[in-house]
Amino acid sequence: MKSYRKMTREELLAEKAHRQKQFDAKKAEGLKLDMSRGKPSTAQLNLSRQMMNVLNSEVYYNDETGTDVRNYGILFGIPEAKYLMGKMSEVEPEDMIIFGNSSLNIMFDTVARSMTHGVCGSTPWCRLDKVKFLCPVPGYDRHFRITEFFGIEMINIPLYQDGPDMDLVQKYVENDPSVKGIWCVPKYANPTGYTYSEETVLRFANLHPAAEDFRIYWDNAYSIHHLYDDPKKQDYLLEILRECRKAGRPDMVYKFISTSKVTFPGAGIAALAASQRNLKDIKKYMQVQTIGHDKMNQLRHVRYFGNMANMHEHMRRHAAILRPKFELVETMLEREIGDAEIGEWTKPRGGYFISFDSMDGCAKEIVARAAEAGVKMTEAGATFPYGRDPRDRNIRIAPSYPTETELREAMEIFILAIRLVSIEKLLKEGQEA
Amino acid sequence: MKSYRKMTREELLAEKAHRQKQFDAKKAEGLKLDMSRGKPSTAQLNLSRQMMNVLNSEVYYNDETGTDVRNYGILFGIPEAKYLMGKMSEVEPEDMIIFGNSSLNIMFDTVARSMTHGVCGSTPWCRLDKVKFLCPVPGYDRHFRITEFFGIEMINIPLYQDGPDMDLVQKYVENDPSVKGIWCVPKYANPTGYTYSEETVLRFANLHPAAEDFRIYWDNAYSIHHLYDDPKKQDYLLEILRECRKAGRPDMVYKFISTSKVTFPGAGIAALAASQRNLKDIKKYMQVQTIGHDKMNQLRHVRYFGNMANMHEHMRRHAAILRPKFELVETMLEREIGDAEIGEWTKPRGGYFISFDSMDGCAKEIVARAAEAGVKMTEAGATFPYGRDPRDRNIRIAPSYPTETELREAMEIFILAIRLVSIEKLLKEGQEA
Repeated sequence: MKSYRKMTREELLAEKAHRQKQFDAKKAEGLKLDMSRGKPSTAQLNLSRQMMNVLNSEVYYNDETGTDVRNYGILFGIPEAKYLMGKMSEVEPEDMIIFGNSSLNIMFDTVARSMTHGVCGSTPWCRLDKVKFLCPVPGYDRHFRITEFFGIEMINIPLYQDGPDMDLVQKYVENDPSVKGIWCVPKYANPTGYTYSEETVLRFANLHPAAEDFRIYWDNAYSIHHLYDDPKKQDYLLEILRECRKAGRPDMVYKFISTSKVTFPGAGIAALAASQRNLKDIKKYMQVQTIGHDKMNQLRHVRYFGNMANMHEHMRRHAAILRPKFELVETMLEREIGDAEIGEWTKPRGGYFISFDSMDGCAKEIVARAAEAGVKMTEAGATFPYGRDPRDRNIRIAPSYPTETELREAMEIFILAIRLVSIEKLLKEGQEA
Repeated sequence: MKSYRKMTREELLAEKAHRQKQFDAKKAEGLKLDMSRGKPSTAQLNLSRQMMNVLNSEVYYNDETGTDVRNYGILFGIPEAKYLMGKMSEVEPEDMIIFGNSSLNIMFDTVARSMTHGVCGSTPWCRLDKVKFLCPVPGYDRHFRITEFFGIEMINIPLYQDGPDMDLVQKYVENDPSVKGIWCVPKYANPTGYTYSEETVLRFANLHPAAEDFRIYWDNAYSIHHLYDDPKKQDYLLEILRECRKAGRPDMVYKFISTSKVTFPGAGIAALAASQRNLKDIKKYMQVQTIGHDKMNQLRHVRYFGNMANMHEHMRRHAAILRPKFELVETMLEREIGDAEIGEWTKPRGGYFISFDSMDGCAKEIVARAAEAGVKMTEAGATFPYGRDPRDRNIRIAPSYPTETELREAMEIFILAIRLVSIEKLLKEGQEA
């Protein structure tokens, strides 16, 4: 197939007419498909069905220290949950606190606490004139909404296949004491699906921040969420807490994980790993904030999995459902517009997303056009702070929730929308030239 | 038995020698008993055992709108949970938001949000020079720790059998715009066990606050936690949200409830009821804070109880376990020191606590003395802001957790500690006089 960029005006007009007809036909079908959020499908939820039999009226509810998990107490998580989630996070159990069902909530609370109480004794951020966060882009919209909510200034940092632009990160972090944090999804990133290289992690661990209360918000949401069984086709991420320790700055990172995409998005368990000094700071706050998180759900998870090997086995079952969907998206994009020079996309080996970059200035219109024909994509711009994509080109594709049949339908429409909007842009550029 | 206050020095010395011997004998038994926290006993936890069979691998996980509760979404609670918790809170489902397992956490977040974002558009409290909360005393230590943590100045308000000193409340609320809240446990209060009268609730509802962002923190933790089946022996609390509406100030109150002492303290569900304007304010925050609370546990609760009648029936089973413990405490106090004129205590008809007032200046020493013989009471002073009981006389008795046998042992020691410390005080006063 010929590149759209090499077509004559007549060829473009003919292609447009042809694709518009296809689009109108699709639109007439009145479909309603959702590719907007990284939601597991019902088939994936059913993988954890047996977990619901683990706690019933016939079992004991005591954790390994003999404490009845139904009652108050054990504020920081039952020991066996710290052990299991520690394995998942590649740290020791004593580096962990187990929370409720949402790691996003831990991140929110971490920012909220820094606003009102500072970080390990530093000045509360609400008393500072300016607080800034670095935001590798494209990134996770919910991260950006937290910092926006607290009036924190967000600075875009380009994100490449091997991680954020570390020269720029270093420049900001080491020279500007108002830079207090950076949002990272280091493995199978949301939305690119790529993983930070060893060098990137080492450069993070060896930062010399200008602010003593600078912290790396390391949201390792997809740590074990591979798409392929073959270890050679899996990404590897260097463990950052250990590297920060080696570099003499163990307090510089907070690690967040959860089982939201292992068991149930609405009823998993979430955890934080950090240095002892950070944990102490957080525990002081938790002792006032709550009587404790749901330890029965912690016990349910621990008894269901037993160990990490079983959790990895469980993740292979997720992969078996997800992999064909990712491959379908990539195959269709490649086959349909691989040579058209109207977009680029990532080819992740794990996680929940594929990131698509259209020609500049087309993303909003593509998403709107797809919506016209009943396909809901993540809002264009959402992957950038303040919802503003400076080049208006990034679209997040979330292939997990629809069935394969629905996904094929949705991708057909999405690709037609890309074609039409791109042709319109090229025609307009031709006129202007 | 003769009042200690009417004894001669010789009689007091003889009584002291006699009680010291009893105390030493008890102490030698090396007991370890805990009457410090309002924890349900294991027998009470077992009342909800069957709830653990409600969700298993064979059931559907859809709420009444057909949504799969295992997945993301339904941020503000599943409809049937709003309905059930609305009934428990005596409000409409649309007045409710359902949260996670801790109502304390909702209260903490409510204060935290007011600090960073204000209340319905008011100035964030962290930008004000002074923020004050009224604290009816004796009260709940965990409330006071929240306001202390945020640097909010706490003002003691005397709490009587029919509620706080409303003249004083009114004076502060209507004249001082820095007074932003009041902590209330309006029914079967912690620790007195008494319930606000209709007049008190009406006076609350008819306050004209000087601050537009003044809110009543109405922690109705023991709303259905009666000790007696006979309605004539149950306390009745006027529903405040309706009264605030009638008085034209629906935004003035936040109501908090939970099933912590209905099902499991560690794994219940908590909820907030408020005006639509307040709910909108809170929802804006929740949309950034979390992806949602554990809806499976909401569904588990709803399916287990079905309706309020079943929940009330369930509470009668709790009462059957708790009532003899409350009666034991009261009977022993009455029999042992009813005439000694060395203390007063409350006689609640519900809730989790009995409040004991010793002679002035004795509480800390009594608690220390009981601890010497292996009985852990709530720390003296805990029922007051900053842990400072100005008269050092209030002790919270929590009879729920020990078995009846343990409770009898603990009370024997506690009463001996009261006797000894009181005699010592009377002897000292005699010398000084």
